[in-house]
Amino acid sequence: MDFSVTHILFDLAVILLATKLCGLTTRHFGIPQVVGMIFAGFLIGPAIFSQLNIPFMGIINPSEAEMDTLHAFSQVGVCLILFSSGLETKFENLKKSGFAATIIALFGVAVPLVLGTLGATLFMGGFSSLSNPDLLHNALFVGCILTATSVGITVEALRELGKLSTKVGTVILSAAIIDDVIGIMVLSVLTSLKGGSNVWMTVLKILGFFAFTIVIGLLCRVIFLWLSKNRPHKRRTSIFAFGICFLFAFYAEEYFGVAAITGAYMAGLMLSGLNDTAFMDRKALVSGYMIFTPIFFAYIGISADFSQFNAHILLFALLFIVLGIVAKIGGCGLSAKMCGYSLKESTIIGCGMIARGEIALAVYAAGRGFIAKAADGTLIGIDPLMPTICLIIVSSILCPILVKASYGYSRKKKYVKEPLTKEEEEYRSDISWLFK
Amino acid sequence: MDFSVTHILFDLAVILLATKLCGLTTRHFGIPQVVGMIFAGFLIGPAIFSQLNIPFMGIINPSEAEMDTLHAFSQVGVCLILFSSGLETKFENLKKSGFAATIIALFGVAVPLVLGTLGATLFMGGFSSLSNPDLLHNALFVGCILTATSVGITVEALRELGKLSTKVGTVILSAAIIDDVIGIMVLSVLTSLKGGSNVWMTVLKILGFFAFTIVIGLLCRVIFLWLSKNRPHKRRTSIFAFGICFLFAFYAEEYFGVAAITGAYMAGLMLSGLNDTAFMDRKALVSGYMIFTPIFFAYIGISADFSQFNAHILLFALLFIVLGIVAKIGGCGLSAKMCGYSLKESTIIGCGMIARGEIALAVYAAGRGFIAKAADGTLIGIDPLMPTICLIIVSSILCPILVKASYGYSRKKKYVKEPLTKEEEEYRSDISWLFK
Repeated sequence: MDFSVTHILFDLAVILLATKLCGLTTRHFGIPQVVGMIFAGFLIGPAIFSQLNIPFMGIINPSEAEMDTLHAFSQVGVCLILFSSGLETKFENLKKSGFAATIIALFGVAVPLVLGTLGATLFMGGFSSLSNPDLLHNALFVGCILTATSVGITVEALRELGKLSTKVGTVILSAAIIDDVIGIMVLSVLTSLKGGSNVWMTVLKILGFFAFTIVIGLLCRVIFLWLSKNRPHKRRTSIFAFGICFLFAFYAEEYFGVAAITGAYMAGLMLSGLNDTAFMDRKALVSGYMIFTPIFFAYIGISADFSQFNAHILLFALLFIVLGIVAKIGGCGLSAKMCGYSLKESTIIGCGMIARGEIALAVYAAGRGFIAKAADGTLIGIDPLMPTICLIIVSSILCPILVKASYGYSRKKKYVKEPLTKEEEEYRSDISWLFK
Repeated sequence: MDFSVTHILFDLAVILLATKLCGLTTRHFGIPQVVGMIFAGFLIGPAIFSQLNIPFMGIINPSEAEMDTLHAFSQVGVCLILFSSGLETKFENLKKSGFAATIIALFGVAVPLVLGTLGATLFMGGFSSLSNPDLLHNALFVGCILTATSVGITVEALRELGKLSTKVGTVILSAAIIDDVIGIMVLSVLTSLKGGSNVWMTVLKILGFFAFTIVIGLLCRVIFLWLSKNRPHKRRTSIFAFGICFLFAFYAEEYFGVAAITGAYMAGLMLSGLNDTAFMDRKALVSGYMIFTPIFFAYIGISADFSQFNAHILLFALLFIVLGIVAKIGGCGLSAKMCGYSLKESTIIGCGMIARGEIALAVYAAGRGFIAKAADGTLIGIDPLMPTICLIIVSSILCPILVKASYGYSRKKKYVKEPLTKEEEEYRSDISWLFK
């Protein structure tokens, strides 16, 4: 038997200590903690450093069965991230700038998707390569990763300038919400393609999934409405919510061929805006950051495949970063201009949407199966892990700089930092650590 | 491949929903939630109900690889319970009634251990059976389960009567702390026996474990002292603490042959009484009750072996319950009398120590390997699961009744319920759900 529960405890201990130390280190240098956590996975995992005999490096060398268990922990982690994301959706914000935000989000998803897919296609040998459906899926997968925005960093930058509650601040926040929803739908289409069934079947499955989820979700919502009114702040509310989250994640993947994270996100969305939503979210965040989220990011690093790590992929990473940033600025900025925003405002909106974070990684983890491989297991497509990590680093450093520059920020001028509401304070202390 | 991450999500969803529903149901009838949670495991697991085709029953039928993963989750759960237990140890309380409490705890461990071992021996065919070391270990294991007190219920009963801060209340709380420490040591001796190595080697290993743990623990304590002073209430503090907990649990089992829960408990003990202890404890509790603890209890039910379930084991359960209650009342009551407490006080102390709960189940889970089996896998010893569950039910119903009766409680008299301190309020809302 190659499974040892005791070794799992060791793996957990090392992962928790290493991710936190590396995360704090990268944050110290202004790079998001997620990057540090994945890097911790590289360091402690068997991929690179196990041969070097440096203390603590390559310390984790799990058997296949143990990797399965770590994978399960990591899957729970990413489901909790998306569940939380869904719960934090504030639909009432959308009313304020609903139409413009929807247009901006649509272009903010479509342009990166198209440019990312094209970029990957070129890189894999041009359009002729798309006759191989595996490579087509791989290219779409790369495009899909580019769609997910992570506005935490933008929020911080806007707040520093005292611009968060302005028209521009509101439209960025709303667009980011709709961006998530559309991005999740694109991911659903992508993952449904996996079976190789025909297009109509795929469309039917996705529509079926959303219909089923919304019906069951509304039923659950009635129960939770009752619970959070009559038994507020009870432990049972959060535990049932977790149950719903895992159940949705399960049937999304098992019966509809949609990614599990889509199910988890939809579960969060269906339970958002209730009296006890913040309470459930808090439990999801604590359970997440104490054990599951670090394992999710470390697992990406531990299970990374470095067989493709060469100059070629670095070149692609460069293309990927440029496309990722240009596509968001172009897509969101131009559509904002179309919606009547001034040039300056449109630039700020475009720059505010470029940051990528944990959702891009969640999409990566959900679509890993699309990395095209030949029959003998060698890579023939692109593994976008490295490019994604590089994009997260570059975009999260660049985003606040660009936003501030578009506002004509100068160090000499004094800005009135907006005070945090209690809710934002909590949000800040919980979520923002990931991309800070 | 018989492992599916998606199925694990389903298992988690079902476990969370079922344990909470069953836990709330048993609590409604005055039986502790832990019992309901284990019962949920019976219901949803493959053991009994999978043949019956009743909806939702036997719904979980994990492959061996999936059971491994659930086992890992459950191991994390029981480590968090013991870690929390260790963190909540208040050494300053011991000063008040240190000597008497130590004597009471010693007898409270020794008498149940001896009587439990004797009872199991008789049940397995008398002293001649002990020539088989497997049966000897099995008998000691049964005795060991009887040692662990769970005073949550007693605390509630004393508070209701307004007697918690009296001399008797204090000595019960102190004795329960020492009881845990001694019980953990007895468990260490038992688990070290597993290797079959000689007695001196075993003693050396245990001493080595405690020496190593205390030295490393003190080093960690210095770091945490610094952290909780200079970076109070930071997420990193709790995450490092979890790392330490899992690390101690790992090396206890891997290098010293001591149960993993012993390591987790010691980690908690070494980090108790710091500024940030309550903060860490809170994170351990939330992570525990949201996912891991329910899985621990459900896993006991899911993986239960019912091959021995017959009239014979029910008879033993009866003996086990009587021994478990008589041994605690006798051991603690008589030693209290010896320490100069009045007959009434001694009776209250004895009755206050009879309740068993989650720690008894943790000891059961840690010692499962001691259930003697013949070469062909059939049981030749005793599986004390059923008797333990029955003891938890009976003792937790009986304990408050006996405590109140010893105080001459009458429904007519009005009692001044002691108000809860903020700390107790938190304790109550976090831990007490398990045995309420």
